[in-house]
Amino acid sequence: MSIHKQTNTVENRLKSLGHDLPPPRRPVANYVGCKQSGDLLFVSGQIGDVRGAVGSDVTKDDGRLCARQAALYMLGTVKGAISDLDRIASVDKVLGFVRSAPDFTEQPYVIDGASDFLIELFGEAGRHSRTATGVLQIPSGASVQLEMTFRLAPD
Amino acid sequence: MSIHKQTNTVENRLKSLGHDLPPPRRPVANYVGCKQSGDLLFVSGQIGDVRGAVGSDVTKDDGRLCARQAALYMLGTVKGAISDLDRIASVDKVLGFVRSAPDFTEQPYVIDGASDFLIELFGEAGRHSRTATGVLQIPSGASVQLEMTFRLAPD
Amino acid sequence: MSIHKQTNTVENRLKSLGHDLPPPRRPVANYVGCKQSGDLLFVSGQIGDVRGAVGSDVTKDDGRLCARQAALYMLGTVKGAISDLDRIASVDKVLGFVRSAPDFTEQPYVIDGASDFLIELFGEAGRHSRTATGVLQIPSGASVQLEMTFRLAPD
Repeated sequence: MSIHKQTNTVENRLKSLGHDLPPPRRPVANYVGCKQSGDLLFVSGQIGDVRGAVGSDVTKDDGRLCARQAALYMLGTVKGAISDLDRIASVDKVLGFVRSAPDFTEQPYVIDGASDFLIELFGEAGRHSRTATGVLQIPSGASVQLEMTFRLAPD
Repeated sequence: MSIHKQTNTVENRLKSLGHDLPPPRRPVANYVGCKQSGDLLFVSGQIGDVRGAVGSDVTKDDGRLCARQAALYMLGTVKGAISDLDRIASVDKVLGFVRSAPDFTEQPYVIDGASDFLIELFGEAGRHSRTATGVLQIPSGASVQLEMTFRLAPD
Repeated sequence: MSIHKQTNTVENRLKSLGHDLPPPRRPVANYVGCKQSGDLLFVSGQIGDVRGAVGSDVTKDDGRLCARQAALYMLGTVKGAISDLDRIASVDKVLGFVRSAPDFTEQPYVIDGASDFLIELFGEAGRHSRTATGVLQIPSGASVQLEMTFRLAPD
């Protein structure tokens, strides 16, 4: 039995869920994908691939898929910045913007697409505080945009 | 004169203002009501009981009441997580979303319903940084949604 | 050659860019302009001078100017609170709300008005994580509202 710490736990779970970690996305403007500050890691807004207002252009399940996509892209960006996703000690905070039809009020259902995924990957450490709200527009017309704050394990 | 530290200061103030602390609200989706990270406590988005867009469906004073309600529910949730509200050393940050009619621009007036309340309860430690903005929709069609960050006293 | 630490670096750069630091803005409601919590400085939402929805009432370049204005007002507020802008060790996080026409999706272009400015002033330490999204309304009908988190150098 190895005395070495198990490595790549999060990435192995990603693979077992059928996902490849995408390469870091280049920021679309003059900011960085994430910024470390003390033990906190502030991650920039990330969109998924689905386009359109949830509740009119696309269904709430399309929106939920978009939230999961955005979370996966976010992890690709974080991997590019910190090299090893196992350095994430906890997911602290998720802010989820849902591009919403005027009468669409199920933003929590949509953002669960990201939250479920984070808990599948990180277990208890993935349980996070969260706000999900409904906005008029999102860059590129995406259906969901996520912002996250992680805590990193001390070096 | 007792040498014991005065306890339940915040809850006693709540009572003197005529409020009972509500029980913690169960999150409506897959997240936790608040998450401690170091000395920071990130509190999830919380809505009040008023429904409708401020400036059309409901008045700005209805919205202000909704902000106070949301803050009260939030404290019930925090109490459930940290047991004693006197552990809160300061209210650091409030993000207030106001479901707004297209031409409604008095979001600061609305969110003062929460800010006034926090300062009544916590005194100087309750003075916080804040952003109040106008969104298209909020979960359950609520008029106001709040997100907060507190700092906890060291154990 | 002086052994004294160079001072007023950020304010000197502001002057070389042709800007005077504005006086701190009085909060429009019951909150404080910024709040220090440990080494973090949470700065309240700040608007620029341009009014109207970006993409209909005003152009995206008007919006970009508004973002730069908001960042400048924010620095005036921070200066009033911490006395010396050189105490800022890094710009950690920017949240940018763009009052958007329903079909306007270039929020990142708009918020670059603030991001470019911060990087001109603070150099590498000014590179930040960021989320830019599109909201229905903003206090006073402004085109852009910014919220920021800074890290302060230890005393």
